[in-house]
Amino acid sequence: MTRADRTPRQRLDAEERRKAILDAGRGLFAGSSFSEVSTQRVAAAAGASQALVFHYFGSKAGLYTAVVEDAVEHLQAALRSADRALPAGAPTRDRVRAALLVYLDEVARYPRAWAPHRGAEEPAAATAVRLRARADQVAGLRGWLRLDAAAWPRHEYALWGFFGFVDSACLAWVDAGCPEADRHPLVEAALGALEGALGDWGG
Amino acid sequence: MTRADRTPRQRLDAEERRKAILDAGRGLFAGSSFSEVSTQRVAAAAGASQALVFHYFGSKAGLYTAVVEDAVEHLQAALRSADRALPAGAPTRDRVRAALLVYLDEVARYPRAWAPHRGAEEPAAATAVRLRARADQVAGLRGWLRLDAAAWPRHEYALWGFFGFVDSACLAWVDAGCPEADRHPLVEAALGALEGALGDWGG
Repeated sequence: MTRADRTPRQRLDAEERRKAILDAGRGLFAGSSFSEVSTQRVAAAAGASQALVFHYFGSKAGLYTAVVEDAVEHLQAALRSADRALPAGAPTRDRVRAALLVYLDEVARYPRAWAPHRGAEEPAAATAVRLRARADQVAGLRGWLRLDAAAWPRHEYALWGFFGFVDSACLAWVDAGCPEADRHPLVEAALGALEGALGDWGG
Repeated sequence: MTRADRTPRQRLDAEERRKAILDAGRGLFAGSSFSEVSTQRVAAAAGASQALVFHYFGSKAGLYTAVVEDAVEHLQAALRSADRALPAGAPTRDRVRAALLVYLDEVARYPRAWAPHRGAEEPAAATAVRLRARADQVAGLRGWLRLDAAAWPRHEYALWGFFGFVDSACLAWVDAGCPEADRHPLVEAALGALEGALGDWGG
């Protein structure tokens, strides 16, 4: 076999090893804070060496940031998929409700991952990933509502405030143990908050 | 003079020195993050020795936490005072509006102090002070609205969500440079959010 034939197989192995480490990191960081998880533990859980963790992610902060990036991409894909599942021309309120239900699924799946919103320390690079994702979410909702923030500043505060509302309400839900029965009250409160904050739906 | 006569004067001096260090810390932390401010700089600004900073506050984290405690107490006193200035029997909406205006004054006075809400690192003890203050604020608003959260879970998510809304909207206001013209739109958005989230005002 020529070298040209072997290279693709080697690349695949590298990706698989990287993914195994990322999966192990996700599993451990989902249950513990950044400072509580060591790269040794991640390496052991992935069946890899600590040197490989550093090779692929540079540092524990790099691994943690990759885990956050992965979680953000997973969430955004789930949100797009839920939105595509709605009938064409669905009212904005239904689109926001569907997005909130996806968000709650994610919160319930990784409740511990919401701890940084409560002040648990995390690397600055990971926080930057979250802030960019938030800006994207605000821009997405602004588009759904066809808002022109310059025309009425209240709308812009309504959008940013809404996402703060959702995060804070979700933390209260996590504290209550993510009870299924509270899903609907939480979503109704959040939809009411957005509606009330806007004053109208995109007028 | 007897020793009994000198002790009170010495205590006063100690309190004044402690206050000078606390004031210097407040001034420096208001413009820079926790990691950017050294105890040397605080000592120099207070005209004190670094040893005295450690004597009174134990550590930089202890000083920072004392600054946060002081800011929280100042805010709570301002909120009580604004509430007392309202006519007896003022509608809850007016009480919440008055509280929001006090909150915005505080945000505009120390805009940099809101950075931890955006992920800037701070000592865990300081975060704990903020979380206790938040729980007090939620309890206070629950009382104003005479809500029984057990009766309708949506109300509890509305309360916690509302404070997340306000924090997030205030960060957007800080990013815009705390424009005076946006004070009213922000307050109206927040009042609308609370009203919409509750579904009614304490029914």
